[in-house]
Amino acid sequence: MPSQSLETVVAEIAAEMAARPDRGQVATYIPELGRVDPNQFAIAVALPDGSVVCAGDCATFFSIQSVSKVFTLTLALGLAGDRLWNRVGREPSGSRFNSIVQLEHERGIPRNPFINAGAIAITDLILSGHKPREALAEILRFMQFLADDDSVYIDQAVAASEERTGFNNRALANFMKGFGVIENPVEYVLGVYFHHCAIAMTCRQLAKAGTFLAHLGKNPATGNSVVTAERAKRINAVMLTCGHYDGSGEFAYRVGLPGKSGVGGGILAVVPGKASVAVWSPGLDASGNSHLGRIALERLTARMGWSIFGAPADMGVG
Amino acid sequence: MPSQSLETVVAEIAAEMAARPDRGQVATYIPELGRVDPNQFAIAVALPDGSVVCAGDCATFFSIQSVSKVFTLTLALGLAGDRLWNRVGREPSGSRFNSIVQLEHERGIPRNPFINAGAIAITDLILSGHKPREALAEILRFMQFLADDDSVYIDQAVAASEERTGFNNRALANFMKGFGVIENPVEYVLGVYFHHCAIAMTCRQLAKAGTFLAHLGKNPATGNSVVTAERAKRINAVMLTCGHYDGSGEFAYRVGLPGKSGVGGGILAVVPGKASVAVWSPGLDASGNSHLGRIALERLTARMGWSIFGAPADMGVG
Amino acid sequence: MPSQSLETVVAEIAAEMAARPDRGQVATYIPELGRVDPNQFAIAVALPDGSVVCAGDCATFFSIQSVSKVFTLTLALGLAGDRLWNRVGREPSGSRFNSIVQLEHERGIPRNPFINAGAIAITDLILSGHKPREALAEILRFMQFLADDDSVYIDQAVAASEERTGFNNRALANFMKGFGVIENPVEYVLGVYFHHCAIAMTCRQLAKAGTFLAHLGKNPATGNSVVTAERAKRINAVMLTCGHYDGSGEFAYRVGLPGKSGVGGGILAVVPGKASVAVWSPGLDASGNSHLGRIALERLTARMGWSIFGAPADMGVG
Amino acid sequence: MPSQSLETVVAEIAAEMAARPDRGQVATYIPELGRVDPNQFAIAVALPDGSVVCAGDCATFFSIQSVSKVFTLTLALGLAGDRLWNRVGREPSGSRFNSIVQLEHERGIPRNPFINAGAIAITDLILSGHKPREALAEILRFMQFLADDDSVYIDQAVAASEERTGFNNRALANFMKGFGVIENPVEYVLGVYFHHCAIAMTCRQLAKAGTFLAHLGKNPATGNSVVTAERAKRINAVMLTCGHYDGSGEFAYRVGLPGKSGVGGGILAVVPGKASVAVWSPGLDASGNSHLGRIALERLTARMGWSIFGAPADMGVG
Repeated sequence: MPSQSLETVVAEIAAEMAARPDRGQVATYIPELGRVDPNQFAIAVALPDGSVVCAGDCATFFSIQSVSKVFTLTLALGLAGDRLWNRVGREPSGSRFNSIVQLEHERGIPRNPFINAGAIAITDLILSGHKPREALAEILRFMQFLADDDSVYIDQAVAASEERTGFNNRALANFMKGFGVIENPVEYVLGVYFHHCAIAMTCRQLAKAGTFLAHLGKNPATGNSVVTAERAKRINAVMLTCGHYDGSGEFAYRVGLPGKSGVGGGILAVVPGKASVAVWSPGLDASGNSHLGRIALERLTARMGWSIFGAPADMGVG
Repeated sequence: MPSQSLETVVAEIAAEMAARPDRGQVATYIPELGRVDPNQFAIAVALPDGSVVCAGDCATFFSIQSVSKVFTLTLALGLAGDRLWNRVGREPSGSRFNSIVQLEHERGIPRNPFINAGAIAITDLILSGHKPREALAEILRFMQFLADDDSVYIDQAVAASEERTGFNNRALANFMKGFGVIENPVEYVLGVYFHHCAIAMTCRQLAKAGTFLAHLGKNPATGNSVVTAERAKRINAVMLTCGHYDGSGEFAYRVGLPGKSGVGGGILAVVPGKASVAVWSPGLDASGNSHLGRIALERLTARMGWSIFGAPADMGVG
Repeated sequence: MPSQSLETVVAEIAAEMAARPDRGQVATYIPELGRVDPNQFAIAVALPDGSVVCAGDCATFFSIQSVSKVFTLTLALGLAGDRLWNRVGREPSGSRFNSIVQLEHERGIPRNPFINAGAIAITDLILSGHKPREALAEILRFMQFLADDDSVYIDQAVAASEERTGFNNRALANFMKGFGVIENPVEYVLGVYFHHCAIAMTCRQLAKAGTFLAHLGKNPATGNSVVTAERAKRINAVMLTCGHYDGSGEFAYRVGLPGKSGVGGGILAVVPGKASVAVWSPGLDASGNSHLGRIALERLTARMGWSIFGAPADMGVG
Repeated sequence: MPSQSLETVVAEIAAEMAARPDRGQVATYIPELGRVDPNQFAIAVALPDGSVVCAGDCATFFSIQSVSKVFTLTLALGLAGDRLWNRVGREPSGSRFNSIVQLEHERGIPRNPFINAGAIAITDLILSGHKPREALAEILRFMQFLADDDSVYIDQAVAASEERTGFNNRALANFMKGFGVIENPVEYVLGVYFHHCAIAMTCRQLAKAGTFLAHLGKNPATGNSVVTAERAKRINAVMLTCGHYDGSGEFAYRVGLPGKSGVGGGILAVVPGKASVAVWSPGLDASGNSHLGRIALERLTARMGWSIFGAPADMGVG
């Protein structure tokens, strides 16, 4: 049982992170992201009663990047159902986020929805039958609905920056198109993809947006049902095994929660039955995950006794 | 909340499995295993009070094969501590159990302790400074201690069968030896490896042996402490991400528990805070995991509401 | 020593090929190529005196496709000299013509100039500092000069067909662009690439165009010097080791000459000191090389005693 | 036409090589080879009249290592004929000499007879139906016959050294055995393999032994016929495309002759119709080929106008 209140733990962690000299490296491969100040840190824990425990720069908007893939997967499952899994696998890839090797060996079928290739294929599914502008608007509305906040927006400068430099993603999309895995025109799909990766949110908003994953598909505070309980659990399972590319095993080992990171420095983590947690710090570690974000989550789960792999005896899994 | 008692659910599942015509294929690459009758099925759920809920052929001994890797990892962590991770990674491999490709790309360091190469490297660690016979005796005693049953034994016919045919494992071991990852003579290491894979247990014994993983490193019934709480959680994390080779994502998605399968048809699964579950049915699916075993676990977790990825609201993770 | 004259051998081979029912499969991945009649065959042997011994459909224009890569390599060596080899390797790849795996492992540097990725990088070199239209005009003029025939042209329908469907090449080009190996805009490079692959020539023209490679860089009939003797030999060496993708060893083994095939069914082969040979038949074998073309070359070299790997005693290499 | 006599060229090259400070690195992975003095160099050119033009340490015995693979291939083709190619491919691998990756992708079939895996499979063919001692004696007698010199011997210290340290080769052999590609017991096959790699010869002997490859399968001086003309050409073709592992393209590009290198520092090169050349210098370059040996061959072929890819106009291929 934790000896401290959640509020105290969260505040302590924010103070500890602020004091550290090691900040990681801000991503530079998307030039616009390279301009973000690395001396920022935020943590937000959204609870089932609708309250959010925050510390640090919790009201600062940042580019959620690949964290958006959790939400586009959710949206695409709603549109296509389990047919989606004919187009994208759900196994860890053992490879970097942008590897194309596995795609060649498996004839254009991405290993999972969280590597870049998989997320692009998911975007193609969402796009089907719509114009890019419409599909993008739907994704944005979904994020605003989940965060219960209309100020969530798309950072056009970041999207434009990635459109100019996203050669690797263009390679992945064309490669899949060559295998018939992508149905819409490549530039349409990439346009939507680059823009949904450029969604800007605060840590508070992101934590709220993830709440349905912690509570069997529903937001307990609002009563809104987003997905079925079974689907929520399964999305969590994919986050656990595939959410951090070739650092997924490490994240499971150290943090012990389903999580999804983004190159903007954000991480969303899910504590089933308990909380949705967002952390943000722009500096990345060697695997491309937020350096301080990972450390903060490791401390949070250790101090709160939050791990899906073992819980204090009086709070066992049901 | 489950509407049925555990006893009823377990009995129902055993009856359903007995009635199915699809049994999978018994492994034949170890000739001795190919002689096992596929019309067998067992399920055993070990509870924290020391009781075990069983159905089917729960008293029949079977070859645990790769399930033994969970226990050799536990033992090796006790001997070497976290230095172990210098010799073996903890990331999913994205490859089959016996793949050698990753080993070449990563200079002889196996991706995780549950693929064959990793388990062989772990065996080498256990062997250090001992004679093969002594190391093997220590592993066997450990299993008997965990199962609280001295009838656990090593099936010499199975071990001899694998010694005669285990060319792929011999390739893996020599390959690692070439990189200096294996320290002891290859044939010593393989001798111990083949024999601990040939440990024979009943489903009841296996479920009991896994109890410490479900309860933060301790067996609540006996009070025996096996590992620290942190280590127990981390072993569970590795089981979740790596326990079923290139089917690990699928198992997490469908069953939602840390688990480890063996080619003998056994699977050990851990319900943190609640139970340790063993299932056994000799027929395998295309990925080399027990066909009926996986289905049985999927039904068990669905009916009992047991998943680490989301639990009924009143039984959340602590 | 051959017992028959070259004219007789060439005529016989054409007759034998015309009689065969097995024609291979016409390439369909470029839709426009899929419309070519498979019942065509041509062979042309260009001799140092400027004469050409022909049989079959030697005056029919066909799409030379990847055979153009020999000539763009020659042109690029003239422009960049041996600096070219900083951007492209010269080792056989052991992979299919369109594989992207090797590119990822070797950070965007293609293995050789004859796989698609390598030829795209070569095209980028030729393009440097020019407009696509100019670069393309230069390539076409070079082909007309070598063939000594202004009727060589670019088949716009084939180029347009590949532009619509060339997703894999677009993937390769973007992938290299991501590594900085391609300097010009991807669509410019691909535009030139697709168009030079769409060059249409007759077998007679192609054989003449290859003459400089058989005679130490000079066309003996015209006296035109195209490259130095050393460079001619080295281009031949690259053709021998890399000219048929993952079928290069097979071609060397069976035909024993430097050669380059194209998916349009053409093959250019070089008999050093003796002749330049072009064959054409649209049906391909499983490796994507002209089925009858390869057989025809095998017969030609056997009957004429033409092989670089051993020659009748009185005609040894100098 | 060369302006100098062969004798002068050979003597000059030996003098130039003796004067160079860069000697490469002597192989150390076989400990016994690591003791060889790097300040040695030899070159021998065997002519069709039976004479040998030599310079440097031409009478010093060295370990021919992988150069032996040319001769075991020749022997195995004599025993098994073209059935051999069902067990071993003949394409360049694009990989290092000891890579196991390709073996996994292609189910245990080695790419060609000159990478280690392929040579081990060839040794297994030679062994069939014999005792290891007999097979080895046959290989040794074949070398003595070809060299026309009974002093060729097997260096037992080198063989024993490799038996103690050859873990990678043991991995390759077991891996193939697991796929059923190796028929005899692994240790028998490796015993013969390690010993034929340990054959010790002088440069003069090695050049003589390769004479049949330069002259359509016959030794013109003795009149002995070793293989058919077709087979000799085809062995040369495999040497050209596969003889230097992942440096085969480079060797073809720079030297322009079929050749086979060994880690002992020897290289055998074939000038069809003209000569068989052996060079030896123990220091290796980064690709594992003799550093000075390669340079010496490059100078020899340049100065003598010897290249299979283009010859002075008056000495064309027949």
